Amino acid sequence: MAPPAFSEDDRHFMRVALSLSKRGLGNVWPNPSVGCVLVSPEGVIVGRGNTRPGGRPHAERVALDMAGEQARGATAYVTLEPCSHFGKSPPCAAGLIEAGVARVVSALTDPDNRVSGRGHKMLSDAGIKVDVGLFSDEARKINEGFLSRIEKGRPFVALKLASTMDARSATKSGESQWITGSAAREEGHLLRASHDAILVGAKTVLADDPTLTCRLPGRGHHSPVRVILDRIGDVSPSAKLILSADDVPTWLVTADSKLIELSEKFEKTSVKVIAARCAGDHLDLHDVMQKLGDAGLTRVLVETGGNLAAGLLNAQLVDRIIHFVAPSVLGAEGKAMVAELGIEKLSDMPRFTRTSVRSVGEDIAVTYDFKTE
Amino acid sequence: MAPPAFSEDDRHFMRVALSLSKRGLGNVWPNPSVGCVLVSPEGVIVGRGNTRPGGRPHAERVALDMAGEQARGATAYVTLEPCSHFGKSPPCAAGLIEAGVARVVSALTDPDNRVSGRGHKMLSDAGIKVDVGLFSDEARKINEGFLSRIEKGRPFVALKLASTMDARSATKSGESQWITGSAAREEGHLLRASHDAILVGAKTVLADDPTLTCRLPGRGHHSPVRVILDRIGDVSPSAKLILSADDVPTWLVTADSKLIELSEKFEKTSVKVIAARCAGDHLDLHDVMQKLGDAGLTRVLVETGGNLAAGLLNAQLVDRIIHFVAPSVLGAEGKAMVAELGIEKLSDMPRFTRTSVRSVGEDIAVTYDFKTE
Repeated sequence: MAPPAFSEDDRHFMRVALSLSKRGLGNVWPNPSVGCVLVSPEGVIVGRGNTRPGGRPHAERVALDMAGEQARGATAYVTLEPCSHFGKSPPCAAGLIEAGVARVVSALTDPDNRVSGRGHKMLSDAGIKVDVGLFSDEARKINEGFLSRIEKGRPFVALKLASTMDARSATKSGESQWITGSAAREEGHLLRASHDAILVGAKTVLADDPTLTCRLPGRGHHSPVRVILDRIGDVSPSAKLILSADDVPTWLVTADSKLIELSEKFEKTSVKVIAARCAGDHLDLHDVMQKLGDAGLTRVLVETGGNLAAGLLNAQLVDRIIHFVAPSVLGAEGKAMVAELGIEKLSDMPRFTRTSVRSVGEDIAVTYDFKTE
Repeated sequence: MAPPAFSEDDRHFMRVALSLSKRGLGNVWPNPSVGCVLVSPEGVIVGRGNTRPGGRPHAERVALDMAGEQARGATAYVTLEPCSHFGKSPPCAAGLIEAGVARVVSALTDPDNRVSGRGHKMLSDAGIKVDVGLFSDEARKINEGFLSRIEKGRPFVALKLASTMDARSATKSGESQWITGSAAREEGHLLRASHDAILVGAKTVLADDPTLTCRLPGRGHHSPVRVILDRIGDVSPSAKLILSADDVPTWLVTADSKLIELSEKFEKTSVKVIAARCAGDHLDLHDVMQKLGDAGLTRVLVETGGNLAAGLLNAQLVDRIIHFVAPSVLGAEGKAMVAELGIEKLSDMPRFTRTSVRSVGEDIAVTYDFKTE
């Protein structure tokens, strides 16, 4: 069967839907962030929506509610296959049928096996024309977190690094404020807002006592979950992340053997304690990520020191690196941005693909995606 | 006095002259690389030239010879003040007067005290209209090597670095071929061609036995001087740099105390042995650069390991860094791109200004200039 032919109008409206879908990133987990645009036969947008904070209502529901009677005969542009199962709300496919939509243009089939093709089929069976695959690469990229969780059982992992040009993240004595400039630090906050959670190691909590919130005007309520890896229970109940756990969710991942002890330690707080397997003297990072996926996270931003960065790289758990590089040099006594990897030969070195490089104030931000081939 | 007003035509022709002037970079030391354009009263270019390889003839002479009789009444655009002293050739100012040029637009007054204002004055005294200062910043930048030698007595020093994103230049065991891709390596050869000399440490010669030529089609004859810093006389007469010294100049800088020994060691070769002071267990890099300036070099490209890079940074002898960054990670056992600098506080860290960032194949090239203020 020949792939469906899409018109310039189709492309335009799907771009609008993709743009809408980005708004929910970091804010809709465990659901995908979807965009939906309803267009009348006259080519007028009569409804639009994206998945709402917390993951509901879905984008289609928002757009249908906006369009009301005008949805009849319209074309719906959706960035992901409409759901077909009765979950916490009636399926979106049923909603589109009931509203009398004439055609659905969908970017991507949902790999979630509760949906996978059934949504599109439900629509076709109801006599709606369904065209699938417009801008599927773009839709996959926006939903890389949701897709990672479905396909690999773990969230998409982005590692944020900030260093001098010689890749030092602090002086020997630990002074790190500030290597990068204010523009880069502000971008760092924006980056947080588009992730479901920020992951740090206990060492970072002990050394810096950070708050890890999104300090951006009007974005405070977007602050993602703070996840602390604390195998042995080093973090104090008076750490800022613990004290503010009522306002912004804080999760602590510890060794299986420490679960009971730490659950008691944090009993009177809102901290959620999660247990993971150990591998030698550290947490098994694959299991950690699996547990975070089980808990619903789709996009995790890691902001950490060189040891955890090395651990994640060695475990091949880094899907993306965002590297902020300052125009300064600190020398070899400075703290290494990435610790020992145990690499003997260049051919064993993890290789990435650079996807962007941008000027951010006096610094640059380089983004790398893991090379899969 | 109000600064001269320049027309759009003036700007255009000076841009042509500046562009011509770049051609000589790396090839005209100890002279500046100048561009000259002669424009008839009708606005037609009747002559153009840039300083020829080896530094003579000068740009003005080349342009005047091309224009012949058409130089009469023309405007000359020159990127640096025409010389006024009788050196190995008659002064260019005299040449312009003799040819009957009506006006001279000059980017910059030559700081060389044999010229400094005298060239412009000689022209004015002859009744030629002289307008100085068009695109002076650009002209200064192109002649930064020549100006550094005049103003500081040493060449402009550019440090080329190539590393993974975590600033490792080789594995623990020294494997470094190849971290960057072929496009970056080709750019490296282009970079060599625009410098008078390439400086390496003896360790690099011992470890890699490089040739340091410009392996670019048609650019072989542009291969700059190879300068080896070899305090204690480690380099073997059978090193490629020594064996090829008949074809491409090779200089060896050693400790004062080793001058006689090494002069004898390399007596039968074309290697030029230069002596410099020592400071403790290393060469005094300020003195090394002074000696290279005395020998006529204006633009030196340093391609070296982390120790010499650190030494130059600590001595504040690095005017520019060109950093090629590969999309890979090697970990903290890898060789540090820059060795210990002895920095305790972030406020003591050398800071640069990023002047460009470009994509070069799969790598990026970031250029930084030393921050002076």
